[in-house]
Amino acid sequence: MSVAQRIPPRSAVAIELAKGQRLTVIDPEGCQVADLLAYGHEDIREVLSNGRTLDYEETIRLTTGNRLWSNRSRVMLTIEADTVGCHDFLLTPCSIATFVHFYPDKPVHRGCFGNLAEALAPYGVTEDAIPVAFNVFMNVPVAPDGKISVEPPLSKAGDSLTLRAEMNLVIGLTACSAYASNGGSFKPIDYKVE
Amino acid sequence: MSVAQRIPPRSAVAIELAKGQRLTVIDPEGCQVADLLAYGHEDIREVLSNGRTLDYEETIRLTTGNRLWSNRSRVMLTIEADTVGCHDFLLTPCSIATFVHFYPDKPVHRGCFGNLAEALAPYGVTEDAIPVAFNVFMNVPVAPDGKISVEPPLSKAGDSLTLRAEMNLVIGLTACSAYASNGGSFKPIDYKVE
Repeated sequence: MSVAQRIPPRSAVAIELAKGQRLTVIDPEGCQVADLLAYGHEDIREVLSNGRTLDYEETIRLTTGNRLWSNRSRVMLTIEADTVGCHDFLLTPCSIATFVHFYPDKPVHRGCFGNLAEALAPYGVTEDAIPVAFNVFMNVPVAPDGKISVEPPLSKAGDSLTLRAEMNLVIGLTACSAYASNGGSFKPIDYKVE
Repeated sequence: MSVAQRIPPRSAVAIELAKGQRLTVIDPEGCQVADLLAYGHEDIREVLSNGRTLDYEETIRLTTGNRLWSNRSRVMLTIEADTVGCHDFLLTPCSIATFVHFYPDKPVHRGCFGNLAEALAPYGVTEDAIPVAFNVFMNVPVAPDGKISVEPPLSKAGDSLTLRAEMNLVIGLTACSAYASNGGSFKPIDYKVE
């Protein structure tokens, strides 16, 4: 078991994950969200796709056994373990625009979007190439009438999600910056690669 | 009122839509789906985003008054009229891969994905730049446990959806090719620009 690395509050990292390696995302304090992106290591134009994933997995509630698919209809990651069972794959990473939209009276932050763009820039990823992230631990109920709300995560301190890479990947991973998604406080996210 | 144009079954068109123009998508026979994409006319890297739209509109059930947003957090289209009120913005366009996945015993078709790629190629759109489409008339219920199913559209002959362009756009629009989304038969889609 490798040592856990820490992503400080409101920041992001890029992680190279070889086929067969496992990435465990840990919520060390509880009630925090980590936005996760995946790009093909050999060709970053291959990227995580919520539409392909929702289509092939036939659910919006992805958990152990579900796979995350690319825009080229290939499996990028398989969820091997999940102690929470509540994640979101509908909403884009928080950004300057979402801060202005949702929190007009609060300080603006570049958000997970800006943090991911900076972390992934060395791999050639541009802002326009940042799609909907798989939002680990994010709690987004969909009401019967279709209405979406962003609620505090259900994750407790030490909860985790483990993903196995099904191809060589570049991962972007954040400790979320938004006010609503983490219940109002900014916390770190830990991760392990093994 | 302009004359309606017809999109033959299992095909697609590209339409240039100037800011302020209206596009009406019509289901001439009923129970058919039209996948709709939008790109910025001045810069095709600006593209329709289901994640931004679901985030800002706070619903997965988009209808009259809702807006369709780009990956750059700008409004591309506003829904001005909608006689059906049931559309999908979760699933990617059907493609060779989805035909192989969902209909292993039936003939494979390039689907809306392949049709959109061909129609939009003259504008520089590549296959990797085709995101989740706004699937007009597509009926995709989400169960309380998150499970997704593709059901026959609720649209009747003559039903329509009208969108106003909020910027200069290139639109991709299909008459859907999949077996499940249109209740098993392939039909045309009509549209008007005014």
